Amino acid sequence: MQKVIIIGAGFAGLRAAKTLAGKKVDVLLIDQQNYHCFQPLLYQVATAGLEPEQIAYPVRGIMHNWPGVRFLMARVEQIDRASKHVLTTMGSFDYNYLIVAAGGQTNYFGNREIEQHSFGLKNLNDAEQLRNHLLSMFERAAYERDPQVREALHTFVVVGGGPTGVELAGAIRELVKHVLVRDFPQLENSQVQVILLEATDKVLGMLPTRLQQKTLQRLEKMGVQVRLNTAVEGASADQVYLKGGEVIASHTLIWAAGVRGVELAQSLELALARGNRVRVQPDLSLADDPSVFIVGDLAYLEQAGKPLPQVAPVAIQQAVTAAKNILQQLQHQPTQAFAYRDRGSMATIGRNAAVAHIFGLQFWGFPAWVVWLFIHLMSLVGFRNRLVVLINWAYNYFFYDQAIRLITANRKQADFDVAPALDIMQTNN
Amino acid sequence: MQKVIIIGAGFAGLRAAKTLAGKKVDVLLIDQQNYHCFQPLLYQVATAGLEPEQIAYPVRGIMHNWPGVRFLMARVEQIDRASKHVLTTMGSFDYNYLIVAAGGQTNYFGNREIEQHSFGLKNLNDAEQLRNHLLSMFERAAYERDPQVREALHTFVVVGGGPTGVELAGAIRELVKHVLVRDFPQLENSQVQVILLEATDKVLGMLPTRLQQKTLQRLEKMGVQVRLNTAVEGASADQVYLKGGEVIASHTLIWAAGVRGVELAQSLELALARGNRVRVQPDLSLADDPSVFIVGDLAYLEQAGKPLPQVAPVAIQQAVTAAKNILQQLQHQPTQAFAYRDRGSMATIGRNAAVAHIFGLQFWGFPAWVVWLFIHLMSLVGFRNRLVVLINWAYNYFFYDQAIRLITANRKQADFDVAPALDIMQTNN
Repeated sequence: MQKVIIIGAGFAGLRAAKTLAGKKVDVLLIDQQNYHCFQPLLYQVATAGLEPEQIAYPVRGIMHNWPGVRFLMARVEQIDRASKHVLTTMGSFDYNYLIVAAGGQTNYFGNREIEQHSFGLKNLNDAEQLRNHLLSMFERAAYERDPQVREALHTFVVVGGGPTGVELAGAIRELVKHVLVRDFPQLENSQVQVILLEATDKVLGMLPTRLQQKTLQRLEKMGVQVRLNTAVEGASADQVYLKGGEVIASHTLIWAAGVRGVELAQSLELALARGNRVRVQPDLSLADDPSVFIVGDLAYLEQAGKPLPQVAPVAIQQAVTAAKNILQQLQHQPTQAFAYRDRGSMATIGRNAAVAHIFGLQFWGFPAWVVWLFIHLMSLVGFRNRLVVLINWAYNYFFYDQAIRLITANRKQADFDVAPALDIMQTNN
Repeated sequence: MQKVIIIGAGFAGLRAAKTLAGKKVDVLLIDQQNYHCFQPLLYQVATAGLEPEQIAYPVRGIMHNWPGVRFLMARVEQIDRASKHVLTTMGSFDYNYLIVAAGGQTNYFGNREIEQHSFGLKNLNDAEQLRNHLLSMFERAAYERDPQVREALHTFVVVGGGPTGVELAGAIRELVKHVLVRDFPQLENSQVQVILLEATDKVLGMLPTRLQQKTLQRLEKMGVQVRLNTAVEGASADQVYLKGGEVIASHTLIWAAGVRGVELAQSLELALARGNRVRVQPDLSLADDPSVFIVGDLAYLEQAGKPLPQVAPVAIQQAVTAAKNILQQLQHQPTQAFAYRDRGSMATIGRNAAVAHIFGLQFWGFPAWVVWLFIHLMSLVGFRNRLVVLINWAYNYFFYDQAIRLITANRKQADFDVAPALDIMQTNN
């Protein structure tokens, strides 16, 4: 039986495995985590709205009924295309066909200083570390006597005007307004600054101009300071340096400014496109190797003269095409070119507010928010997850309470420099 | 206004704060976590039955309606009784009265080797690390070719025949039998060994003999190997050394063999009782200092010639007595001696089975299990937590599925030695 290895159990890897299940191929799905993480809701984990475990689902549980698919939890260290082997931390495995769906990582554009002093939001660990940091800032500020330091502790800088940045900035504002002002009797909503920085001249660039305007209005109304055409050049533990020389005193820099392909891309030994992405043929295979397919955030393909965006719908649709193209090759049939069907996009901005552009229709405000809730709830894997997420959302909505505002032991290493007084978790291990 | 400092937001600290709320004293509650953890259910977090966040509740949320009570998240580094100050990582605070409810930690009886190579179960961090380790053993064993190594990976040693050890051993067996055998098609329930070691000649020593017998029968039926009169002398990454020379090949040693008072006890500068506990007067104050009270796991007090057990009901009742005795002192009234009202105790052994000794009545099997479920559910703080725990329990019960079998980044440091092939999380930070 022909062996197919799929690297990555994100949206793309899972869909590829599902498409190949029961198709008389031997599929090995490899991921370094034993769970699939629903990335679009990471920002809610980071702002104490959901528990990390609620947006994750064990891969082995998902594939119970997928015949011919096995799972391996390991990190892939190298892809040896010459001998058709994948080298992992759990040993070496050979393949006839390979689908690389290893995804992306936070793009710091090579700036180590920013990488060290900022929080990304690409996985559960990031989200939990960010939650712990955000909440710690308020605990620390509550007993800080120096008003300048207190102001810096209460200033949160989010970089990147895409959906992640917009949703996160809105969620932090609401966490403060509805929950933290009750937790901290001395705290007033107006003492907290949430600043959203965007290097271009617009937020949510993928949406029509009217929805961008609605988003800006809403963010402003919520008290998020949006600064367009503003780029970040550097950071320290308590300062953010803007291009042009301005300095913002803040202990929290959240970096949602872009995605680049994972380092594994290097081991394919190809010239890579911008953002560490791998150029693929229209059928998603490599130009010099029709047995290797690249899908999702790691793939670089242009359509109508523009690169396809690094979003879940592209990844899922590409996974289906790549899997089908392998089956076509096995039957000595020609492969199909990938064609992205863009059904639209959306972002939530806070309680009762979202913007959505679906099937050519534009929504905003409450109707868009309801659509957003429904689509995200239904996209979660697992009945239990849907139910507990629904309950949390309902609870947070009706009680204005986010019960998961817990500071657990999982802290970013550099965070101990930022908050030396709160380094209490280290002794806990 | 008189200042009362309470150290610790466990069962005792919270109850003391609640008792003093609105009583015209200025209360400062200090804990190194910002949440209260419901310790009796830690074993379910460790076995993927509940999410860590479901048994924790933010302290500030609990005390919203407690007038006169403030919260400080900090680690207490020292108690200076001479100047009546508590020194914390967030500064120094003075008191008129002090209640020390700082609790206990895992008692390794000074054995560093065991401490390094075993898992405790005293806080959320412990529980999450143990869950991650347990699940990793199965992921690793699935691709292990050496049958001896595989057997060691599939062997789980639990030390301590108290409620924690019994509940944990039962829960591991059920996780394997109902969930993991479906996740790992090559795995058979009989390949997994769960060994419960107890140094004395009985399990659940606090219960009547008949219930101890019922417990042993049930554990045996579930496939837990119980070995009484068996003590552990040492451990390495993949071996457990028993007194007498026997060696068990196992990568997992879980230490539930006892509790000792936290190190903070030292700073009281008193001769301490066995297990690092602080001897108190019948009214729970110190013999040489009537303004300092010790309650809960840290306090050592005998009643009817026997030391009071380190359990939640004792802690809660002591907290009330200590708080009331402070109010008595403020009104120049005599303090009351503490009298423990033992309402009974219970332990669950697995699906549909528990043992309970309440108000002198003995229950076992299904009725005891229902009582156990009800009491634990009602004891959880917060409506949301009760609801989501109930849903998880119902889900696990009816679907034989534990959806939280996720291996997250939180690993015990020594665990990277145990499972070098799975050290994939380290790069994730």
